[in-house]
Amino acid sequence: MKSPLEKEVLAKVRPTDEEICQVCAVAARIIDEVDKSGLAEGMVVGSVARDTWVRGDRDLDIFMLFPPDLSREDLEHEGLALAYRVFTALGARAHEKYAEHPYLNATLEGLDVDLVPCYRVASGYEIRSAVDRTPFHTRYVKAHIGDYRDDVLLLKQFAISGGVYGSDQMTGGFSGYLCELLVIHYGGFPRVIQAASRWRPGTVIAVEAEGNREFHEPLIVIDPVDPGRNVAAALSLTRMADFVELCRGYLTAPKEAFFLSPAPPGITRDMVEDIIRDRGTALYALVFMTPPYIEEVVVPQLKRSEASLASLFTRHGFHLTRADSKMNGIRSMVLVELESGSAPRVRRHRGPPVWNLENAEKFLAKYLGPDASSVFAGPYNEEGVYIVEVPRAYTDAGSLLASPEVMGVGLGKHIRIALEGGWEVLKDEECVIPGFEEFVRDFLGKSSPLVKVIRGVQ
Amino acid sequence: MKSPLEKEVLAKVRPTDEEICQVCAVAARIIDEVDKSGLAEGMVVGSVARDTWVRGDRDLDIFMLFPPDLSREDLEHEGLALAYRVFTALGARAHEKYAEHPYLNATLEGLDVDLVPCYRVASGYEIRSAVDRTPFHTRYVKAHIGDYRDDVLLLKQFAISGGVYGSDQMTGGFSGYLCELLVIHYGGFPRVIQAASRWRPGTVIAVEAEGNREFHEPLIVIDPVDPGRNVAAALSLTRMADFVELCRGYLTAPKEAFFLSPAPPGITRDMVEDIIRDRGTALYALVFMTPPYIEEVVVPQLKRSEASLASLFTRHGFHLTRADSKMNGIRSMVLVELESGSAPRVRRHRGPPVWNLENAEKFLAKYLGPDASSVFAGPYNEEGVYIVEVPRAYTDAGSLLASPEVMGVGLGKHIRIALEGGWEVLKDEECVIPGFEEFVRDFLGKSSPLVKVIRGVQ
Repeated sequence: MKSPLEKEVLAKVRPTDEEICQVCAVAARIIDEVDKSGLAEGMVVGSVARDTWVRGDRDLDIFMLFPPDLSREDLEHEGLALAYRVFTALGARAHEKYAEHPYLNATLEGLDVDLVPCYRVASGYEIRSAVDRTPFHTRYVKAHIGDYRDDVLLLKQFAISGGVYGSDQMTGGFSGYLCELLVIHYGGFPRVIQAASRWRPGTVIAVEAEGNREFHEPLIVIDPVDPGRNVAAALSLTRMADFVELCRGYLTAPKEAFFLSPAPPGITRDMVEDIIRDRGTALYALVFMTPPYIEEVVVPQLKRSEASLASLFTRHGFHLTRADSKMNGIRSMVLVELESGSAPRVRRHRGPPVWNLENAEKFLAKYLGPDASSVFAGPYNEEGVYIVEVPRAYTDAGSLLASPEVMGVGLGKHIRIALEGGWEVLKDEECVIPGFEEFVRDFLGKSSPLVKVIRGVQ
Repeated sequence: MKSPLEKEVLAKVRPTDEEICQVCAVAARIIDEVDKSGLAEGMVVGSVARDTWVRGDRDLDIFMLFPPDLSREDLEHEGLALAYRVFTALGARAHEKYAEHPYLNATLEGLDVDLVPCYRVASGYEIRSAVDRTPFHTRYVKAHIGDYRDDVLLLKQFAISGGVYGSDQMTGGFSGYLCELLVIHYGGFPRVIQAASRWRPGTVIAVEAEGNREFHEPLIVIDPVDPGRNVAAALSLTRMADFVELCRGYLTAPKEAFFLSPAPPGITRDMVEDIIRDRGTALYALVFMTPPYIEEVVVPQLKRSEASLASLFTRHGFHLTRADSKMNGIRSMVLVELESGSAPRVRRHRGPPVWNLENAEKFLAKYLGPDASSVFAGPYNEEGVYIVEVPRAYTDAGSLLASPEVMGVGLGKHIRIALEGGWEVLKDEECVIPGFEEFVRDFLGKSSPLVKVIRGVQ
């Protein structure tokens, strides 16, 4: 049973007839082009195929199912060639993208269309690449969704609005397929919310068969078409907790803001200046040109760079409160908040154990000889281990972030190349630059999705 | 074989004939008084009895051996009464002190005399209290010291000058008896130095029999009169490493400074101001009246208070570089160096796991309700655990140290009572107050004894 609120929300998120008509027409033209080639069979997958897409969703995923006797190499080659032919015939300019193997993406009548070659296999057990699985997912959902299409729309919209929708690396949240399975498994949106409010890390949901191996992710949802796969593998512990909290909040006091959150307030440099002054901390941003690769490639490297820069600061004696990073179309940013932008000149440096004769002698010789003039105190021993107090290389966090030390940390290949072209160091309110206003605002006012819902309507 | 340097040093540290004559005369008069009571037998113990005292040592320890059939209570009672009678007969004003049981201390002809009651037992195995063991130590050393008296003087003076002499809690170093045993065991001062330069934590020295239990101290020297006792039990790992380092340094380049270190330079407030500015840190001292108890009682409580104050700072978000403490006749000081005297206003506070429904709800209610106005950011979750960012109680280290929070930490009974009378908070150069100049100087310029020897003669 849907509540009046849920019915109201549905009226707002169900695609319009016009939208449905347009999407279906575009899909039909593409399928026709694929089928008429005689090389592969076209199949609409994803939320469009399952009738579970929410209003305004502009994604259309179409697979080209090739015969399984094709070699992998031929699949890639023929798949791309056919996709180019199809898009060209429809007058669209396509560009290549990469998942497990290459596929084409193009914009057709305002829709974001992916045209993906895969193998036509008989069952989930014969899957040869990750995309081969998608048609099985579509078939499973279509066969089991019954009357729950509206429930899926509600759950997706609930997850989108709560910031936990999307199995990409940046979000680490719920995929559309996961939403569909949850609705099928529990039997409708209200029951998903009820059940999820009591989830704990390690919760296992076997939609059909039990899993056929051990899983270690926080939430385990066994794929009904492949018992060796956890559909919720991409869901992070943090995002799972956000969702559990949202479900609890919704059960306590359901309101429209859980589905359609009010627009967050804007932010200005003056506001950030005030916030930083109140917090008594120092904010630093490292900004550089986004590498020309897709999110799936760049984001993991950006996350790695963020972690490496955080340890660079720690290693140099600065104390972090938080760090985050954001990939944008043109530029990317690593944002770091420090307890203070300055570190004391003196630094305690640990040497070898006194009992390690050879290293102990080298250590003493160094700090009593050539480096003696720079020593503040020591060498002395603490519980048998040498300590010497020497000057710190960087007492200002901004100088550290502008130094070549940055190129010495683990960045990932594409970020390293981007940084070779230079980077900018911004401090405090300077971090508010076009394209990153929301990111900086959300960083400083970081709150859980539920807290935002509660605060947003107060 | 003594080196010319060692012979020169001996000439300076061997007691003068005049000193020996005076000490022996005072000892004889006390022994006479004890013996003539008919209640106990007087016995000179310690370095005087063993002829191993260094020039200028003004300590004279005399034991009164009572029959073993006396009850513990009677021993304490009769022992004190006899000691008072003896000192009174010699015209000295005595005062009570406590070790395992009470004894008397008085100044006689400039000597610091302890008169200690104990049981006369037949062997080390029958020992009933720690002091009963001392006469056995004296007998053992006298029987085995042979021609090594001068070697003991050298080793003691080496340890005194290196700051590692004394088995009291503050020093955690070498006792006189330990020095004597090492000289006997290894066969002279040069061999002690040679052997100790290669000591490692866990080194075991069985002077006579093997130990009859397990020991876990860094250096284990089995007491020849009691195989259940480690003579080096009081030696800390740090002090042991200091000694090992000194031995290595002496083997490499022996010089008089190892025995008679040059007077360290003085220190002024201006100098401390400069040092602190260079280090870029903040120095804080907590100063209070020394409790009217002996060092053995006060020092452990002072060390405990130092550790508790260090965690108080850490808990409140201040970052320590080092802490130390010093008991002086009138006042005591806990000295702490912080990376900065100020902490950011914002503080990350960890809450319960999101999965802990009851506590999670309480936590959310608190920070969304009554405490909402003070929240900087959050609540949000990190890997399933709630975080909220709220204002710190103290952003200034001096205010924290002047606050009642100080009385809320583990201080030890007597220090707590002393602090109830108030305390002073000093900052940076203000910490240089009469009686603590050397302490502050050694704290800021902290270096190992060997490094001081090497620097002192450069």
